[in-house]
Amino acid sequence: MRLLPLVLALSLAAASSAAATASGAWSVLRTVTDAPTAASSDDADTLFCDSWRLSVETANAGPWGAIPVRCVAFVQAYMEGPRYASDSAVAAADSLAFASGALAAAEAGAAKPAWVFDVDETLLTNAPYYAVNGWGSQEFNETSFDEWVDAAKAPALPSSLKLYKELQGLGFHIILLTGRTEFQRNSTEANLLFAGYQSWEKLILRQPSDIGKTAVLYKSERRAAMEAEGFKILGNSGDQWSDLIGPPMATRSFKLPNPMYFIS
Amino acid sequence: MRLLPLVLALSLAAASSAAATASGAWSVLRTVTDAPTAASSDDADTLFCDSWRLSVETANAGPWGAIPVRCVAFVQAYMEGPRYASDSAVAAADSLAFASGALAAAEAGAAKPAWVFDVDETLLTNAPYYAVNGWGSQEFNETSFDEWVDAAKAPALPSSLKLYKELQGLGFHIILLTGRTEFQRNSTEANLLFAGYQSWEKLILRQPSDIGKTAVLYKSERRAAMEAEGFKILGNSGDQWSDLIGPPMATRSFKLPNPMYFIS
Repeated sequence: MRLLPLVLALSLAAASSAAATASGAWSVLRTVTDAPTAASSDDADTLFCDSWRLSVETANAGPWGAIPVRCVAFVQAYMEGPRYASDSAVAAADSLAFASGALAAAEAGAAKPAWVFDVDETLLTNAPYYAVNGWGSQEFNETSFDEWVDAAKAPALPSSLKLYKELQGLGFHIILLTGRTEFQRNSTEANLLFAGYQSWEKLILRQPSDIGKTAVLYKSERRAAMEAEGFKILGNSGDQWSDLIGPPMATRSFKLPNPMYFIS
Repeated sequence: MRLLPLVLALSLAAASSAAATASGAWSVLRTVTDAPTAASSDDADTLFCDSWRLSVETANAGPWGAIPVRCVAFVQAYMEGPRYASDSAVAAADSLAFASGALAAAEAGAAKPAWVFDVDETLLTNAPYYAVNGWGSQEFNETSFDEWVDAAKAPALPSSLKLYKELQGLGFHIILLTGRTEFQRNSTEANLLFAGYQSWEKLILRQPSDIGKTAVLYKSERRAAMEAEGFKILGNSGDQWSDLIGPPMATRSFKLPNPMYFIS
């Protein structure tokens, strides 16, 4: 074994807890070994809820119902503060960075380059609804949510609207694929126009025959149909993994943040 | 349209910016519409770097090289502070919550229930190495990293060690699948034992014929071989998406945090 200064320092540090004259490396060893600690119960909630949110965003959490009771204030602060906007903006920037190159590569072929967008918490934000319905801590109320959908006043997620227009400028065919039902077509179109979206190629909603299917199955079937129609799905943006997974998948999929609810 | 009080309040708020007497809903509308803001450039870096980290953890970022220059202090604080430990612990808790039920369901069949673990940044943490090598801001130095591996002093990621023992207690066959090479078998075994890991079923390292393969391909081939040998891979834990994706996948995959480097 060659004794690098680094390795030597670590060996010495590990051998003696008296070596508390923290080198950078030793301070790390100590920290990683310790259990998480927090100065107050508020800090402990923030620490836990931030980790819970990561587990949701990476799908580690698996299927889940309501948000943890201790995380209501955290989710509210996340959604109302700058973090939700920032996370969404970076996801949009990742999408655009991919899109240009993907289009250049794809144009050699004959397929029509397409980008698929989900609607709720992707193009539109229902934060105003969840703000007065517990931020995901309450059981989903289909009646009141349908009334909110009918009102057609959900604002655009600003970074998604910007991306949408940029992708159109690049020449992408924009296909909207939502778990909303065909009965909500008029209000959904009205809301999208109200929020500033225009000129989508098609808006696909659940038909009566889709009721009861998981979002994964329903959306995968529709993506397969798009490809059969000659579209090449280069990108797919959604706030649920069920918007993104299942064959055929887009060349690249982009997970938008949503700490409020889960759809399988 | 039925005029719910909620919808009415929103319509009024949206109609007049003078309505700055923030109802919860209106304050959300305003925040989501605004671009992210921060009180200082440190705050701006934290906001951006936290979003960048999420884009890495969700794979939105796609392939990447060094961490952003402005995020070095952020990554250091994340790794040295309580967040890395907390995020890892929640990932382990998610894993264990899944494991018991999965095992009960699987035991009806004949296959041997298995859990696959990656090694670096999964069972072991190389934080002490990266602490003195720029936390991912410097180009990967194979020579110095190999010396660190040979030293065999990487500590366990504590939540992974706990999970490892819990899974063994449940009866899982533990298979270690690492991108390290066969030449590093002795030091890897020594390091795992040093860190407290014992009684793995097998430790799979890259053979000469695997050099040059992506991690996705190499690891997928090895998972296929495990299934051919009669293992049913119920869980898979890794800090890189390339540990987890590609057929055959585990029943559930668990993404551990790693804001320091990317492997395709």
